[in-house]
Formats: sequence, structure tokens, C-alpha cells
Amino acid sequence: MPEFDLAIRGGTVVTAADTMKADIGIRDGRIVALSASVTGAAREIDATGLLVLPGGIDSHVHISQYQGPDISMADDFASATAAAAAGGNTCVMPFALQQRGTSLRQCVEEYRALAEGRCIIDTAFHLIISDPTPEVLGQELPALVKDGYTSFKVFMTYDDLVLNDRQLLEVFDVARREQALVMVHCEGYDAIRYMTERLERAGQTRPFFHAASRPQVVEREAAHRAISHAELVDVPIVIVHVSGREAMEQVRWAQQRGLKIYAETCPQYITLTAEDLDGLNMEGAKYVCSPPPRDADSQAAIWEGLTQGVFQTFSSDHCPFRYDAVDGKLNPKARTSFRWVPNGIPGVETRLPILFSEGVSKGRISLQTFVALTATNHARLYGLYPQKGSIGVGFDADITLWDPAKRETIRQEILHHGADYTPWEGFAVTGWPVMTLSRGVVVAEDGKVTGAAGHGQILSRDISDFARPRGL
Amino acid sequence: MPEFDLAIRGGTVVTAADTMKADIGIRDGRIVALSASVTGAAREIDATGLLVLPGGIDSHVHISQYQGPDISMADDFASATAAAAAGGNTCVMPFALQQRGTSLRQCVEEYRALAEGRCIIDTAFHLIISDPTPEVLGQELPALVKDGYTSFKVFMTYDDLVLNDRQLLEVFDVARREQALVMVHCEGYDAIRYMTERLERAGQTRPFFHAASRPQVVEREAAHRAISHAELVDVPIVIVHVSGREAMEQVRWAQQRGLKIYAETCPQYITLTAEDLDGLNMEGAKYVCSPPPRDADSQAAIWEGLTQGVFQTFSSDHCPFRYDAVDGKLNPKARTSFRWVPNGIPGVETRLPILFSEGVSKGRISLQTFVALTATNHARLYGLYPQKGSIGVGFDADITLWDPAKRETIRQEILHHGADYTPWEGFAVTGWPVMTLSRGVVVAEDGKVTGAAGHGQILSRDISDFARPRGL
Amino acid sequence: MPEFDLAIRGGTVVTAADTMKADIGIRDGRIVALSASVTGAAREIDATGLLVLPGGIDSHVHISQYQGPDISMADDFASATAAAAAGGNTCVMPFALQQRGTSLRQCVEEYRALAEGRCIIDTAFHLIISDPTPEVLGQELPALVKDGYTSFKVFMTYDDLVLNDRQLLEVFDVARREQALVMVHCEGYDAIRYMTERLERAGQTRPFFHAASRPQVVEREAAHRAISHAELVDVPIVIVHVSGREAMEQVRWAQQRGLKIYAETCPQYITLTAEDLDGLNMEGAKYVCSPPPRDADSQAAIWEGLTQGVFQTFSSDHCPFRYDAVDGKLNPKARTSFRWVPNGIPGVETRLPILFSEGVSKGRISLQTFVALTATNHARLYGLYPQKGSIGVGFDADITLWDPAKRETIRQEILHHGADYTPWEGFAVTGWPVMTLSRGVVVAEDGKVTGAAGHGQILSRDISDFARPRGL
Amino acid sequence: MPEFDLAIRGGTVVTAADTMKADIGIRDGRIVALSASVTGAAREIDATGLLVLPGGIDSHVHISQYQGPDISMADDFASATAAAAAGGNTCVMPFALQQRGTSLRQCVEEYRALAEGRCIIDTAFHLIISDPTPEVLGQELPALVKDGYTSFKVFMTYDDLVLNDRQLLEVFDVARREQALVMVHCEGYDAIRYMTERLERAGQTRPFFHAASRPQVVEREAAHRAISHAELVDVPIVIVHVSGREAMEQVRWAQQRGLKIYAETCPQYITLTAEDLDGLNMEGAKYVCSPPPRDADSQAAIWEGLTQGVFQTFSSDHCPFRYDAVDGKLNPKARTSFRWVPNGIPGVETRLPILFSEGVSKGRISLQTFVALTATNHARLYGLYPQKGSIGVGFDADITLWDPAKRETIRQEILHHGADYTPWEGFAVTGWPVMTLSRGVVVAEDGKVTGAAGHGQILSRDISDFARPRGL
Repeated sequence: MPEFDLAIRGGTVVTAADTMKADIGIRDGRIVALSASVTGAAREIDATGLLVLPGGIDSHVHISQYQGPDISMADDFASATAAAAAGGNTCVMPFALQQRGTSLRQCVEEYRALAEGRCIIDTAFHLIISDPTPEVLGQELPALVKDGYTSFKVFMTYDDLVLNDRQLLEVFDVARREQALVMVHCEGYDAIRYMTERLERAGQTRPFFHAASRPQVVEREAAHRAISHAELVDVPIVIVHVSGREAMEQVRWAQQRGLKIYAETCPQYITLTAEDLDGLNMEGAKYVCSPPPRDADSQAAIWEGLTQGVFQTFSSDHCPFRYDAVDGKLNPKARTSFRWVPNGIPGVETRLPILFSEGVSKGRISLQTFVALTATNHARLYGLYPQKGSIGVGFDADITLWDPAKRETIRQEILHHGADYTPWEGFAVTGWPVMTLSRGVVVAEDGKVTGAAGHGQILSRDISDFARPRGL
Repeated sequence: MPEFDLAIRGGTVVTAADTMKADIGIRDGRIVALSASVTGAAREIDATGLLVLPGGIDSHVHISQYQGPDISMADDFASATAAAAAGGNTCVMPFALQQRGTSLRQCVEEYRALAEGRCIIDTAFHLIISDPTPEVLGQELPALVKDGYTSFKVFMTYDDLVLNDRQLLEVFDVARREQALVMVHCEGYDAIRYMTERLERAGQTRPFFHAASRPQVVEREAAHRAISHAELVDVPIVIVHVSGREAMEQVRWAQQRGLKIYAETCPQYITLTAEDLDGLNMEGAKYVCSPPPRDADSQAAIWEGLTQGVFQTFSSDHCPFRYDAVDGKLNPKARTSFRWVPNGIPGVETRLPILFSEGVSKGRISLQTFVALTATNHARLYGLYPQKGSIGVGFDADITLWDPAKRETIRQEILHHGADYTPWEGFAVTGWPVMTLSRGVVVAEDGKVTGAAGHGQILSRDISDFARPRGL
Repeated sequence: MPEFDLAIRGGTVVTAADTMKADIGIRDGRIVALSASVTGAAREIDATGLLVLPGGIDSHVHISQYQGPDISMADDFASATAAAAAGGNTCVMPFALQQRGTSLRQCVEEYRALAEGRCIIDTAFHLIISDPTPEVLGQELPALVKDGYTSFKVFMTYDDLVLNDRQLLEVFDVARREQALVMVHCEGYDAIRYMTERLERAGQTRPFFHAASRPQVVEREAAHRAISHAELVDVPIVIVHVSGREAMEQVRWAQQRGLKIYAETCPQYITLTAEDLDGLNMEGAKYVCSPPPRDADSQAAIWEGLTQGVFQTFSSDHCPFRYDAVDGKLNPKARTSFRWVPNGIPGVETRLPILFSEGVSKGRISLQTFVALTATNHARLYGLYPQKGSIGVGFDADITLWDPAKRETIRQEILHHGADYTPWEGFAVTGWPVMTLSRGVVVAEDGKVTGAAGHGQILSRDISDFARPRGL
Repeated sequence: MPEFDLAIRGGTVVTAADTMKADIGIRDGRIVALSASVTGAAREIDATGLLVLPGGIDSHVHISQYQGPDISMADDFASATAAAAAGGNTCVMPFALQQRGTSLRQCVEEYRALAEGRCIIDTAFHLIISDPTPEVLGQELPALVKDGYTSFKVFMTYDDLVLNDRQLLEVFDVARREQALVMVHCEGYDAIRYMTERLERAGQTRPFFHAASRPQVVEREAAHRAISHAELVDVPIVIVHVSGREAMEQVRWAQQRGLKIYAETCPQYITLTAEDLDGLNMEGAKYVCSPPPRDADSQAAIWEGLTQGVFQTFSSDHCPFRYDAVDGKLNPKARTSFRWVPNGIPGVETRLPILFSEGVSKGRISLQTFVALTATNHARLYGLYPQKGSIGVGFDADITLWDPAKRETIRQEILHHGADYTPWEGFAVTGWPVMTLSRGVVVAEDGKVTGAAGHGQILSRDISDFARPRGL
């Protein structure tokens, strides 16, 4: 019986700390050896000339979330995880969204049912809390944390999701007691409504004005508010999808004061600007996401944050729609005002190439930073470590082989997601994933998804490394 | 007929820019001459050895505000203006408070009726908006601004006053259109409720815990929120009664960004600390005000703000109660929790000596800064300039003669306010007002109030110098 | 005998604090009355429709300084003070420059001799210390301070002026002991030499490269160094001619830390940029001054500093040459490298209109700030107050009548300075001085200099208001 | 023939990114495998219950530097490397110090001769440049960089080492061209001389006043100056031994501006304060080092820097003397003034336990941060990576077995350095090195040094990862 089920040989292994030439030996879906030479494996993969990276973990994706009667998300768990795998990922973290008036536990079960048997790579759910009743706060959340749902997301905007400050504080308080981690969508609801109505009164209703309806100050204020609430309650939080200079500077200021404020950013905030929303007719709707892309100065600020350690994670905020769902065909109201355009863009498949190309290939960040931002920190932050997040003895064999020299142009035709467009159509990159292994199984190779639905497991998670008191 | 009704001779005249030896000639209640020698006046006052200052303007006092059925404020307009005059003031600016469900115009008329014929010095009302209905926003406020009520106050806390963010934005929007100035009480309502309940659950209900229920972060967050709303709407605002380092730094940060954010602080924040709330039994209730006094570092921060120009005005936030109103005698609930202790302390009579002594006599600020902080800037900020606020040709003869060398100890027995205690009992000062003239009439002299009820007029005001577009 | 020698009637008097309609009564060269109506004067000037401003004080001008054998400054005391008067000034503060190896006292006497009998307006000398020998530090400076030379200037660059850090510290130490005020030219000598040689090696020798040879970082470093030395010694200093964002931010940072760091800026830093040095042939030499003008962002930063109180004074740094002195005609080396182009531009005559027009007329600063920046703060900072610097009883009748509506275009042909060009040729302004009175005597009127050489006195000064311990 | 010379089994391997249970297989002094189980090695070490760490790299130690005729350093290369090994280190980086007037190359050869055959662990020299002649700058440095001396140190103070700004700029310029890295000792020479003489004149000459002679502002100014020079030249530098809040904040400010400014701190700055210099008689001399230890606020600031990524390396600045060398016995002048007390304290042996105990055991930093600060970043910063600095396939088998639970009290009697005292006498720690392996050879075990003189090699180095343009 061979010692290893599989060997990956000849590649350059990269972790968040190190780069080394090493062969990898895999058995039972786990990495059991890194060695100058792994021989005698049942199967060998030649990684000569390739980087051997920890599989990408995308800790911010929306899959199969209910969008009302008229439209639906473009991805279910099968297509989303297929696209993720093709894009070099081995784990995604979607949301189980509580609808108001319903039990959070029941919502979790419904989302699990949607995912069960369909995932190509491993999946772990965050909880979205839209209705923090005493029952939810007192009973359901503590029980769900014990069951491995150790992170919650809360919203400071959106009609059907927004929590008021009192509710935010109560959720933070539960998180502190249960050592759960809260992700916060920071945009101020009232300010957006005020701006939206002002714009609508002025007849400024094209998708382009979506960005004007939620300027940076709206995100900055909400970020400051969330930080202050976290400081009051004394609990770590994650500010997700930071889009621009002003919110970034709030996070950096908080971190310098010693607060445990973590932050995430996304591809759209280093590559797109509000100008992209200014297309003919409804073309701009393809770029409507929240917070909106900003400007060149904010892109520079996001790079500052990425290189200076302000951001721990780089996620996609994948939230895919088909064009007919945003251009008003299925949802005619979208043509009357940006207010009715569904918010969200697809991105789970293109996240890694965009950061690699703009970051590593252009010399802005090191390979170590790339791995930390796309895999290791996601695992640590959300309690998947040390099962996932790195290449080392004992970790799941979640591995992406990456060709750092391969040039590719992002086009809808080569993608696997359920959306029928990509905001990055025509975007040229250097560096591309050529093979993805999930627990030792090849799930994508050379642009083809080879994994089987159901291979992916639904993971329960430990508490965050960052929520637990530090120390040994 | 003599050229002057009155001459003030031999004193040292101080303005916000200059100090000069000059006699002052007064006719018909106005200053008509400054001269090396004013002779031939009908009456002469000898100011030799004294400073001749613009009368103090206290732009933040609460008088006769309705407090519910059980207790009442300790001052009506007669006693409040008498105390103010004895303390060297020639103008106070109380509030006409809208109770929810009522017309703002009607509230204004009611407050005017309380003041009419009773005031010893001139008075001008701000409006407190607690119920910004479309009628209030669309009709009443524009009309009231035209009638000379050019400043509004809004609250971010207190059950019966708090506005939500949407309401704040709407009020700011009206202020922008009408060139009115909004004063904002910055403390976060939900955060205070959260902390209060947590403290109450822990049995921490003594007056001392009032301070713990609204720590600096609560004030800082609200200040940041108000600043952000003002930035979004593009309107100047005043952050009133800034108490500590964190809120001060928010204001300074906003000012450095070029925003028109103005700020006020008060005697309690340079002389008291949270420790003062820690008395035996209910003694601490004598110091319960909001925001609460902080600590030595915050006192230092407030001085930084005073010397660096962060603060434009130094007001009393006079809000007087008799001890039986705060110690639970009249209001037994106050003994069950700090939550029920009325918030407010008396201060209109002691504001000037405290700042003069701690600021000028101790060498922290110049005489010019003292005059600016206590008179000139109040007049400019709230549209009373150039009728009031300085000593110059054409200004009202609102003048205080000040003995910079006189030592006094603040004691309840020498004060004229309606409260039966002072938080500064035993506080020693150097510098004391020896005579106050309102429009050329002596209204206080050597600790005696000599002015007549009804001498004081209710002023209508111009728009703020600071709300109008700058320039010639 | 009339009570007043002169009355200025019907104008609007402006001080650093106030604006008021008032007549002014003058006797024996001093202001003796401000009044609603001054009658019976021997002579009356009608100021209807005009602003009545304190005469400008320009605390940073270079006159008749020795420039070596080949070239000379374009202004002597007669022409410089004539130009100053025409530009609305009533006092200039030139420098008595110590040449190395000589006695400072002797240099002072030589400069006094050049000025004596030639000045049209009052003059007061600062001392430039280039050779701080023990004799200078221990004997001459203390004696000169006692004689009214209460401010020194030191240089951190220029071959024949630069002091090393030890020398700076020793001069600061003397200033602390004698309560004198030190003005510091902040640019780093070694860094400039390094850059200059690098540029010369690269053949980049046109006047344009003067700016590149001393970029902002060079000024910032020197400013930080001067601030640190002042902090170590515990003495107030003035950072003169701050040119850009980086040095401004150092000053602001120091002020926020509570250090007594004062700062000056000049017209060139709000109106010119480094691009102006990029003329054909030697045209750029007309704009060579140090520090050099920067860019649009720095102009914005200087305005931030002017509006936020970072700068106390706005001076010209008048340092006039004729074009043949900078274009290489008289000084052929200037064509071989920017290094040999004399540093300095004329500006004493255009300072006030430029700030008034760009600041007041365009709504960036108030009239009060204009007066403070151009007159009052100069007097306070350099010990001329309360003799000069404001309009009030007892002040010298140094007054400028200003037409705020008058439009003018700056052109060499209307100026009175000794230079044969102006860097602001063609610059359009709104607001212009129409009459200048020095101690009650009209010295300039409608573009004509009417004052007599010798009218101007050489003043001795008190110690700075800002160097003395604060307090009553 | 067994596959491995040595196996380390059962331990917990820690890198700057990861923690994992793994056995390590070593052959020919290198790590060739990490595996769930390494069997069949010639020798096995049981690491059960222990952390398996990359051996410490101390990139800042002074060994056998010439100190003048009367005194000598307490360590030669044998004792220093023995002490380092006992303290868990596998590499030290001492300095080859150029004496003025001598060839740098020759100095290097002399230091190599002192080290050759005596070192127990590997060693690599930095160059100290005290005399940057054209020959040194133009010929010697480029050649030495090519020979693997890829880092220079320069001093901004000390009579016999200080470079002026021009010299600093020239050295930085060479570093930029040669991709070498410059370490800068940031304290201002002139300011120290000024303060020293002032203190001496006041009779304040005890060792205690050493700290007063170089307060934080002196370090801050020099740090700002070095940063500015690096910005001007566009070259990365390392600010070594940052001691307090003010210098830390300069570094953080520079990093936020995107400058490549790296920084180091040391055990003395998180554990000692200036009070430690205040001993009886000459006891304080045991703590005289430069910069001096500061105060509690600065310790907090250094921790901020360590946790926020401001500091890349934590070194000892080991500079050992025997007590008779600092107390005046051998050097009587030391008793006349702190100025003559040799600057430096021993620390190479205690660096790791102090940081582990104060940092990891007390929960301030993670194990990953500990490894980065003590090993990985030193290797990356100074061109020893990927030969040294981590545990991975291909790295030198430089490994320290660490008992995280072992409690020890630092005492001179258990140390191996050449000094006869330790500043940390009696300091209790949790966590202690129990075995050190250099290239697979056990050089220290259980407090005994087992390595042989001459085992240690003198390494040449690659250019710094941080000096090279970033990218793949």
C-alpha cells in the first residue's frame, strides 16, 4: 500500500509566511508530508513551474438568497461552487439569511437543504440576523454558535435587513458572550434614504446615481458607528467590503487605538469606479453593488490598506444576477429608479486572478500577502483554522496550482458562474489557476470543472482565532 | 444737553482683538464714542483699575422648561436673568422647547409669554425641535427663521426629544435652505439605553453611574454622526457642550477637513470630573448633567480645544434644579436609578469667573480669547452681531466692569440663581464682575442686582455670520 | 485750537475682531477717538464707502542687503518704503544681516545708517545671525534685545548664512533667556546641496530646476528639526515663509501638541507654482525664491492653514532684484546653473491686494482674518503692540483706506518698487488701497507716494506678546 | 543508509504563518521533510510538549568592537555566540566597524579574523560606516555588497561615528544604487551635546542623567530626519532600536505615507524605564544604553508598534560590558559624568525569553508574530532568506525547541555571556529554550552550551527582500 494517495511534485509551495520548493504528500484528503522528494504515491501531479497555493477561501458570497417573487439570484450552490472551484477556491462561505418573523434556526435548515448534496467544494454558513428577537438573541444564537455557526452578519441598511443601533448593540453583546464574530455591512440607512429621495426628486434616477445616493461619508459614518458600538460592548467585529478612503481610514484609526476591528475589501474596489455605473441605457446596472465603487483616490487608499495590514481578508462579495434581473426586463421598476436595481455583482470566479495580477504581478504585494488575504486569514478569522487556510502537515489538501505567468483575459465565455455577464469583461490578467484540489480531489482543471456535486461538505466551525482572548 | 448720557472713564477696554485705555461715551443705550477722554456726560462711572469688557452672552441656558408634573426648573426668567446679570452677563439665549404633538410656533409664543416683562437683561430664543413634522419643517421653521429665530437645537438622546437620523437630516436640510444654524446635543440614545439597562441589571444605580452610562465613546459616536450628516447635507452646525477628548478630537478632525463644524464647551468640563458624582447618598445628583464631566485628560483636551480655536463658544448649559428635585425627595424614582435624576446643573452666574480665573488668571488664555469665547463669538454665531458682542461705536452699551485682581470664593450664599446649591461651592477664583450694564443701564453692581424686570428685551436675530456664505 | 488734527469720516473701521461704522479722530499722530461723529477737526478725509484698516505691517522684507560685488538689491530704504506705502503698508521690518567675522552690533549700526533719513514709513529691524560666536551669544544679543531688537532670524541653508544644529540650539537658548523671538528659514542645507549636485550632473540647470533642488521634503525636514530644537530648549519660534502642505502639517502638528510654534506664509505660495519657473530662456529666474512655489495641492494647504489659524502672519518676503541681476547679464554664472540665480522676488507692494482679493473678495477669509494676518498679529508677534497693529484709542494713526470694490490689474508700470518686473504681471485683483496714513500723515494716495523720506522712524520694540509667559 | 540524519518528533512546529503538529526530518544540516511521521532517522529528538521554532536570529549585536585603550567589550565571538545559542539563537549579526581614516575593507577583514574559527553559531556582518570617503562610497561599498555585505549601519550621534546630513545622503545614495539596506541609529548629535553640557553645568552628572541628556524629542527629530533623507533619495532604511512613543509614531506616519521605512525595537524598551538608571552610586550605569529606556507610556507605544506591524524586528542591541568598565573602576572619567559611561547593555541571551514571556505568554502577541519578529523578518530583511528564518523544506536546520510552560528567573548565574551582570536580574519569565540546533547540530541544551567553536560559519548574504523592487 503506497504511503501517499497523491503527490504534488516539483512545485513552489507558498504559505502566508514562506516560499519553498517542496513536494507534497497527501493521504485521506489531508496533507501528511512536505518533503524535498515525495515518491511512491499512487498518483503524481507535476507542478513544475507552478505555484502551489492554499486553495482560496471566499468568506463573503451570496448564494440562492431569496430576492422576492420576481427575480432570483443567478447562482445556486452547484453553479456557485463550480465557479468558485474554477476560480481557484476550495471553500466558500455563504449566508443563511433570516427573514423577519421567522426562526433563525429554521432559516439555517432551509439554506442547508439548498446546499446539501450540491456543493463541489466545502461550504460554511454565516448567519444573517434581520430580526433579533429575544428568542433569537437568548436561545437560537447561543445554540447555533455551539453548532458551529460562529459568525453573524448584520446590516446597517436595506429595508428588510437594517438593524437599529439598539439591535446592533444587542447582537454585539451576544457575540461577546458567545465568542462569535460579527460582520457588519456599514452604510447608513437613513442617509441613503434621504439622498435617494433627493436624487429622485431631481429626476436623477439612472443606475449611475446609485453611487451618488450612498457617497463615502455614508459608509464612513456607519463604520465609525459600528466601531464605536464594538468599543462600547468590547467585542471584535469585521467591517466588510470597505470601498474607499474614508471608511478605510476609520478602520485604521480604530486599529491604531488598539481596538479589534478587522476589515475586508473586494476586487471591485481596486478595479472599478463610479464611472463604470455610467453606461448607456441600463448598462450601468451591471455594476450596481453596495457600497458602490468609488474613484482613483479610493483605489489607492484600498491598496494602502492591503499593503499596510488594515485589511485581513479580500473577498468577492459575490452576489450574482442575470442581466434581465437588473436591467428592468423582469423588474420594470428598476428603470424608474436605481433604487429598485438589485444590488450585487458576480465575482467568486475572478477574485483570485484579479488580486494576483493587480497585486502580485504588478509588484504591489508579496506572494505571502496574497495567500494571507485570500486563504489563511479567512480560515483564522472564521474558525476554519487549522483545518483549512494553509499548506502544512495536517491541513486539508485544499490546494490550487497557479501559473504565475499565464496571461488571460476575463470574458464571460470562459466563466462558470450563473450570471450572464461579468463586470470585468475584457480585463487582462497575468496569473491564472490551472488546477484546484479539494481535500485531495481535483475539482477543476484547465478551465473545466471536474468535481462532483456533493463532494463539498457543509462545515461547522470553531470560534474565530480573533474572537478568542489572545495567548497560547 | 450733554453729548453723552453716561461715560465710563479710566478703564481698560478689551475686545476680541485689542486692549486699550479708553473712555466710553454712551447715548440712548448705545456706545457712541471711545476716546482718550470723554467729558461732559450726564453721569460718569469710574473704571480705574478695571477691565471694561463686552457683557457676557450665554448662548446656552435652560429657563422654565417644562419638566413633568412633579418637578420644575429652579429658575424662571426673572431669577435666571438676575443671576446672569450678577455674573457679568448682558444677554442669555434660552430655548423654546417644542413638545411632541404640538405646534412649534405655539411653543414659541408660550415661552415668550413666560419671558415677557420678566427679564432683567436681553434674551433671545433658540428653538428645540422634538417633532419635525412636515408642517414644522415646511411651514413653521421657515416662518420662524424669518421672524428672527435663526437657530434650532436638536437632540440625539432623551426619550422625549431624540430625533432619528432621518429627522436630523431633514432638519439640517431646512437649516441649509433657510441659512439657520443647528445646535446638536451629541450623545447616542440607543447606546445610553443599552448601558443604562446593563448597569441597572448589575445594581449599579447610584448617581455615580450616570457617568458610566454615557462614556466618551457614546458622545464621540454621536458627534461623528452629526458631523457626517452635516457634511452630507452641506450645512454648518454647532456641537454643543463638548465634554471630553474624544468628541473634541472629532470636531478638530472635521474642522481640519474644512467642514464648518463649530463647537461649544462649558465650565463643568474644565473643572469637574466623574468623581464628583461619587458623593454620599444622593450628593452626587448635584453633579448629574449630560454629557457628564470626564477626567483630567479630558480637561486637558478641552483646554487644548480652547487655546487652539476648536471651540468658538464657552457657555454654561445652565439647567438649574433645587436639590429636592434631584435627590429623590420630590421624585422618589431618582433613588432607584440615576436614570431618573433630572439632568442639569446651575451655572449661568459662575461661568465668567470660572473661565477668567482658570483661563486668564492662570495664563492659559489671553484676554482676547476670553472675550471671544464669552461674548463676541456668541453674537457672531447666533446673529446678534454687530448689535451685541463687542465694545465699539454703534454696539449696544452691554458692558461688564471686571476686577481682574478680586479674589472670591464661589458659595451658594452669594449667588442669585434659583437653585439652592452650586456645584462649585468653595471654588476659589481670581477675577470677578463688579458692575454690569445692559444698554447703558446698571443692572448689577457689587453683587446686588439692580436691574428691573422688563428692562430686558426679547430679541429677534439675524442669520448667523457663520451660516452665511463667507465674503464681503 | 481744534480737538483733532485730522478726522477720517464716514468709513467702515475694521479690526481683527470687529467691523463698525465710525469716524476717527487723530491728534499728534495718534488715534484719540472713535466716534459716531467726529467734528471740528483741522482737516477731514472722507472715507465714505471705504474700509478703514490698520496699516499693513510687513514683518519680512529684505532691503539693501549686501549681495556680493556684482549685484545689488533693487530696493534701498527709500524705494522699499515708498513701494510699501503705495501698497497700503505703514510699517516694514527689514533685516540687519551679520556677515561672518563681523560684530553684530556693528552690522546693526550700518543698516541703521542706510535707513536713517530715508524711510517714508516706520521701520524696525530684525537681526540675522550668521556667526553666533560666544561674544555674539553672550554679550551682543542680550544688549541688542535690551535696545529693542527683540527678534532674530536664523537660516538652515545658504552657504554664508547656514547655522548647524548646535548653533541653532545656542541661539534658541539665548532667545529663551532674553525672551526674544527667533524666526527660522527652514530648508535643509545638505539636502539642497545633494540635490543640486545631482541635478547639475544630469545637466538640469535651468531656473526651473531650482524648485526640484529643494522639494517639499527638504522644507518639511528642516521645519521638523527646528520645531524639535524649540521643543528641547522650550522657546517659541516662528517658521517663516511656509510654502506647502508638508511643512504646514508639521506646524499644525506641533501646535496641536501645545508647542508655541508660530508660522508665516506669503503671496507666492497661494498664487504661484513651480510651473512658473519654467519660462523661456531665463524668464523663470523671475520666480526663483526659496522655498520655491509648489503646486495646487500646496496652495490648498496654505489656505487651510490661513483659515484654520495655523499661520499668524502673511508677509511678502520682499527680496527684489532687477532682471539683469537674475538673468545672468550681471552675473553670468546664473546661466550655468540655477544655483547661482539670486533667490528672491519683489512683493512688498502687492501683498495686501493679493490677499484681499484672493482671500476676502473670494470669500475664503473674513475681513477680521485679513487684518489679523496683515497687521495685528505682526505687531503682537514682534513687540510693536499696542503702538501699532490696530485701530483703537492710543494707537499710532497708521491707517489704510481701502476700496473693496476697486478692480485693478497688477502691472510693473503702476508699481513703485525698485525691481523692473513683478511676478504678478497681469494678475487681476478686486480691492485696492487708496490712501495710506503714517502717524496721521498721508504718505500715499491714489497710486502716488506723497510721503517724505525721513518721515519714517526706526522703531525699537518690546518683547513679543507671544514670547512672554501668558497671563494678565 | 537512513534517509534522515536526525528527526525531531512529536513537537508543534511554528512558522510566521502557521502552527502544526509535525515531525521534522533533517539531512546534511538542512530540513528535508515535515511529515506526520518521520521514521528511520539516525537519531531522534523527542519534542513532545515543546514548540519547534525557527532558531532566533539576532540582527543587532555588538561583538569585540574596539572601545579605546582602557576598556573592552565583555564578549568576544566565542562567548557571544555561546550566549546566543544558550538563549535560543542560531544566527547573530554583528558589526564590522570602520574606524575613521581606515579602509572599510580592511576593517571587515579584521573583524572576520576575530570571528573566524570562534563562532558556535552562524554569523553575518553588517558594516558600520564612519568615514564615507569617495573611495569608500565609490569603490569599497559596491565591492563589499557584491561580496555579501548587503547592509550598512550609520550613526547620527557619537563623536567618532556621527555622519553629517550630507554624508548620510551619500551613503543612502550608494545603498539605493547597490540595493543595500541602511540601518540608522537615530539620535541627534548636536542636541545631545547641548543637553549634556547643560546638565554638566548644572552638576547633573550621575548615570541617571544619561536619559535626560537624550530625551525622546532628540530621537524623534533624528528619526524624522533619516526618514526624510530616505524619502528624498528614494531608498528603504531601517530605524534601529526605537525606544519610545515619539519615534514610533514617526515610523508609523512614514509607513502610512507608503515609504519603505522599517523599524526595530529591543527588550529594554518594553521592560525597563529611565528610573532604572537611578541606582545608588554607579549602579545606574548598568542600564546606560542609547537610546535610553523611557517610561510606561513609551512601553505601551512599543507594544502598539509590535502588535500593529510597525516593527519588523525585535533585536537585542547586545553591547556588553563588565561592571568595572562602566562603574568607573577602569574608566574613572565615568564617575565625573554620564557622558563617559560606555553605552550598552548585554542582552543576546535573554531577548527571546523576554519577548516570549511578555508577549506570547501574556497574550499580547501570537506565536506567529513572535517567530516573525525574532527570526523570519530578520532573515528577509537582511538577505538570509530562504536559507534561514523559517522551518520548511530546504531551510537550514536552525531550530530551537521551546518549552512554553517553563518558568525561569533571569539571573546572571545561569547566563553565558561575558558580562558580569544582567539588567534583568530577577526578572521572571514563562517560556524558555531547552535545545538549540544549528544546521542540525545541537549547540545548546538545558542551559549548557554544547556547540563547538568554529561550527558557526561567517555567511555572505543576498540583498534584502525589502530593498529589491517588489513582485514575483
